[in-house]
Formats: sequence, structure tokens, C-alpha cells
Amino acid sequence: MARIYNFSPGPAILPAPVLERAREELRGWRSTGVSVMEMSHRGEDFIGIAERAEADLRALLGVPANYKVLFLAGGASAQFAAAPMNLWRGKKQASYVSTGYWSEKAIAEARLYGQVQVAASGKDSKFTTIPPRASWNVDRDAAYLHYTANETIGGVEFQDAPEADGLPLVADMSSNILSRPVDVRRFGLIYASAQKNLGLPGLAVVIVREDLLGQTLPGTPSTFDYKRQAENGSMVNTPPTYAWYVAGLVLDWLREQGGVKAIEAHNIRKAAKLYAAIDAAPFYSNPVEPAVRSRMNVPFHLADSNLEALFLAEAKEAGLVYLEGHRSVGGLRASIYNAMPEEGVEALISFMREFERKRG
Amino acid sequence: MARIYNFSPGPAILPAPVLERAREELRGWRSTGVSVMEMSHRGEDFIGIAERAEADLRALLGVPANYKVLFLAGGASAQFAAAPMNLWRGKKQASYVSTGYWSEKAIAEARLYGQVQVAASGKDSKFTTIPPRASWNVDRDAAYLHYTANETIGGVEFQDAPEADGLPLVADMSSNILSRPVDVRRFGLIYASAQKNLGLPGLAVVIVREDLLGQTLPGTPSTFDYKRQAENGSMVNTPPTYAWYVAGLVLDWLREQGGVKAIEAHNIRKAAKLYAAIDAAPFYSNPVEPAVRSRMNVPFHLADSNLEALFLAEAKEAGLVYLEGHRSVGGLRASIYNAMPEEGVEALISFMREFERKRG
Repeated sequence: MARIYNFSPGPAILPAPVLERAREELRGWRSTGVSVMEMSHRGEDFIGIAERAEADLRALLGVPANYKVLFLAGGASAQFAAAPMNLWRGKKQASYVSTGYWSEKAIAEARLYGQVQVAASGKDSKFTTIPPRASWNVDRDAAYLHYTANETIGGVEFQDAPEADGLPLVADMSSNILSRPVDVRRFGLIYASAQKNLGLPGLAVVIVREDLLGQTLPGTPSTFDYKRQAENGSMVNTPPTYAWYVAGLVLDWLREQGGVKAIEAHNIRKAAKLYAAIDAAPFYSNPVEPAVRSRMNVPFHLADSNLEALFLAEAKEAGLVYLEGHRSVGGLRASIYNAMPEEGVEALISFMREFERKRG
Repeated sequence: MARIYNFSPGPAILPAPVLERAREELRGWRSTGVSVMEMSHRGEDFIGIAERAEADLRALLGVPANYKVLFLAGGASAQFAAAPMNLWRGKKQASYVSTGYWSEKAIAEARLYGQVQVAASGKDSKFTTIPPRASWNVDRDAAYLHYTANETIGGVEFQDAPEADGLPLVADMSSNILSRPVDVRRFGLIYASAQKNLGLPGLAVVIVREDLLGQTLPGTPSTFDYKRQAENGSMVNTPPTYAWYVAGLVLDWLREQGGVKAIEAHNIRKAAKLYAAIDAAPFYSNPVEPAVRSRMNVPFHLADSNLEALFLAEAKEAGLVYLEGHRSVGGLRASIYNAMPEEGVEALISFMREFERKRG
């Protein structure tokens, strides 16, 4: 069978060497005779795996010492609740920027815990652009300012962290963490589900400035309490050990690729090629303002939307899978996270050209 | 190297054929060329895996049609919060039975959400027995009656579901689900983390009677909302897909073993042999009242506790690993879940006899 390229938005493609190492180590980790799947999270073997993953993440992202790094069960949706529960700290409201589907989800969940002020929204542009920072109306007494660093469905991405007017800046980086450098010191909280650039679903990474901790809302589940988790090495409860291990394998691989700056260059090349192919002919289109196009998720349409089902079927035949757009918007979408090789993008572009030649 | 037997309390031993299948399928599931780790949870391949796991669980446990089965991120500790959040339903208090470490954890978490009435407690016996049902003081107007079906640390286990005085009966079956038959119709809610008898940590199975749903407490995170999860096939958020798949492999294996009744017979044999070995000489001891001894977790002490470190070291040399008692109580503990073969228990008993011969 031809090489398969998996464009799933998440759970998503993993680096081939990561899958190979997971396979090799599956029945027994090193000389232990015990699979990582079967290891007590309190045993020295797993503690070593866990600590190494944290150290690698800290090194790759340059996480300062006054930030805690947590590995928690669940993904970003759980963090949509955990972030306000931990960071509301008696303030009147929290300030959110809406740039699409995931921002809207985060806002709806935050409203379970208090008043949300929407500082800016891309809704008027159907989320094809990000309102310029100068137009935002941020409550300077808000608990924090929340934004979604990358929208997987609309395909818009912040190209830099926004100025936060002195508020703790909170970012959902689920779909672009480790894909580009980030200055962690500018943030109060970064959270990311793992299933795009860090491995398996069911795990979220939380990076939080320690002075923000300790004022959780009443009724916060213990497993969501950042301070308690920080004091217990993310083991208030049994953590998702196997997902934590796979995250470690992904981080190992990323170090071997040269780290975040090197993968960013790779991601820029891949995205530039794909957008150029889409823009080259009216047969394909992407509606997003070029300056804020996502490097990770590239939604596109065919001029004749009746051809999309055929496109998907023939792409699958050609080994290009999971190109369906999100069920809320339809169309097509190519997710090209860190682990997507450049050849995968080139294979997609070749297929697109050939499909256009035959049906255009 | 000799065969390793893993007595970890969880994450715990998996059946060898499950590990082998996971290894075989790791780089590509069937003919897809895509690992289960990389599959979109919305795609037909994963939906098939998910539905089959649910169907197998329903068949193995005999879950009636008016019960929802959910596969949720996190483990029992998250359910310690989710259960009251979903089932409190405006009642004055909830009734809990305390039989050890995990009951106490469940009670402490429930107190975040309202008043807890402790209907009975084994504390006076240092949790070496379960207070007889006739002595319980259950509030007949409570939201529900909660108990911990098996205590992994103290090593006590309910041999049957208690009478609930008409209340919804809620059980934490994390450490004994699928190890013995259970009449699901007697329960309002059963929850279990997966990392003992169902695979990987980071996943909980929830079985809930549907008429109890729809009255969550304000502030319940969406991912904890049983009704929303039930309406969305456990996909309000991205579920822990890989853990769900491994649970399916374990359920497949259990069917091949002949199902729950067959594995129960196996578990009875294993536990009987191990307790008999402990009781045979004063060199070893287990403090639990024989009628409520756990079939899953067998804590024991040496008469000379100074020898315990040596016991652990020599056991590890002999391929018998993770026999440490819980850090809260010390001593030794053998967890012998469904996947522990009888030969593993026999190897432990032989080692114990030899150790006693040399050091007794």
C-alpha cells in the first residue's frame, strides 16, 4: 500500500519514529519486562518518564522556573472549566476574545462560573479575520484575558501573543503548541490538549504562573485544582500515564528535529506551499485573511461544492485521509501539524492539481 | 529473563494477548494505514471501535437498555465530583458508607457539593471489616447511597451489593468491575476508572440509569455532565480514544476467557490460594476479616517488618514486581486483577515460602 498521509484535525498524525518506539517498547519498557501501560504511576520507572517529559517540555518552550507544568486528564474542554475555576480570584468578570468555534466554546463554559466580557469578536467577518488589537475593549480589572491561539475549524491563528493590558494572559494553545516559539513570560496560563502536537487525547498540558494559584472557586473538583495538582506532581489522582509517556516520545522527537524554531521553519514552508496551491486557481478557495491564516489547519472549499464528496473519496484512494471539513462548516480541511512531513503536503498538492485537471 | 509478574495496584497488569494486539496494530489499524492513536474520534473507524467496546461491556455486565454507558476522560477521582454534581438533584444530603481510603476520598470530594451523611464506617475496626448492613443508618431521603465496592489499600470488598432502602445505589467499582457478576438493575450509578480491569488510566466507565439524569448542579463542567455526554455518545469533548480502544481489547479478551462468571471462578481460586498461604504461618499476616477479604488486592505484613524491604528486593529479583504496600500504610500488597494469571499467584506463593524458609 502507498504511504498514507493523515490530515485529521485531532486525534492527529504522529511522527513515524514515535509510533515505532511505542511499538518497540509496548510489551516491556527497557529491561523491566513491564509495559508502560502497566506501570504504577508511583514507581521509579514511571516517575522517571514523567519527569523527563516535563523537563523536555520546559526546555523546548523555555518555561521559566516560576511556572508550574501540569499533565492532567482530559483535554482543552475540561480546561475551559478549569481555567475560570482556578483564575477567577474574586474578580467581577473575565475578558475573552472570540475568534471562532473554540473561543465560543471557551466563553460558553466560562459563563458557568461568572460574567464574561467579550473584548473582541471576529464574528462579523464570519471568523475569517482577527480583530486588530487596537480595536479590543479589554476590561482592565478583569480576572484575565483569554484567547484561542489557533482555531482549527475557521483556520485563523494569532501570529503573536496579544498585549494583555497588565492582565494575566490565558491562551488555549491546543492546536499550535510547540509549532512556533512562544515567550511564556507573557502568559499567566497556557493550556493545550495533547492530541494535535503532543500525542494522545485524554491529556492536557497546563503551564501556569505560580503566583496565580491558590484561589480556586468553591466546588472546583480536586482533579481540576491547579495548586493541589502542582503540589502533588500532577498526581492528586492517577494521571493518564500512557498519554504522558507518548507526549515524552513526541518531545524527544521534536528535540531531534532541532526544537521549536526548526519545526517552525518546516511548518512555514508546508503552509506556504499549501495556501499557494489553493490561491493559484479559483477551483479552490480559502476565505481567511492571509495575515492570520493558520499554519496548522487549512480549511478550503471547491468552487463547485458538489464535487467535494468525490474529492474526499478519490483523495482517500490516493492515501490522503481525514480531509473532511468540520461537521459544523462542511467543506474540506487539511490539518498539517508538526508531525505532517513536507512530502505529505506535496502529495496533497499534486492530488489537488490532478483533481482540478480532471474535473476543473 | 524469567517471566515478570506485575502486582501493581494500578495502572496494573494487562493480559498478554491485549498487549500483543496493541503492538501488532500500533502502526496501522487493519488496512487503514492509520494508528488508532491518530484516528479522528468522529471518523467511521473509531466510531466502530467505540461502539463495539460499549456493546461488549453491555453484554458482559448485562446492562439494561434504560442505562447509559459513558466513556469519560479522567478516573474515579473525577467521578468523586461528577457523581454528586449529577445526582444530588436538590436533596438535602447524600448518604455514604466508609470502608477505607477510597470511600474517605469520595466523601471528602462530595462535601464540596453538599452535606454528606456517613451511614456507616469501618473506621473503628481500622477498616479491616465492613459494618453489617443491619447496623447502617441510611437517610431514606438522601440523594443516593454511595459505597466503594472494593478498597485497594485496606483490602476489603463487598461480596454483594447492599440493600439501598429505595435510594439510587451508587458504587465505585474501579478496582473490581468485571471481576464478578453484578446485577446492574440494583444500581443508579456505577463508575470505574479503567486502570485495573479495563486497561489504561485516564478513562472512566460510567453506567447510569437514565431517569436520574438532567438535574446537574450549577457549575458542573460540561465534560462532567452525564446527560450531555449521553446525548453526544461521550463526545461532548474529544474522548480518550486510545484508552477506549484498549478497553475494547480487554473486553474482547474477557469474552474469550468465557466472560465474567468464568473470570470470577479464576479470581476465587487465585485469592483463596494466596490467603491460604498468608494464613498458613505467623510469618505473614493479613488483618482483614475473612468474609470481606478482597479478591483483587491482598495487603499483608511480615511479622518482622524490618524484613519487608528485603522481601521486596528479592521478589523483584525473582520477577515479582510492584509488591509495595500503599505509601499511606506501608507493608506489602499483591494486586491480582483479572489479568493476573494463576501461575503468577503460584510464583508469588513459592517465593513467599522460600523467603520464609530462609529468613523465618
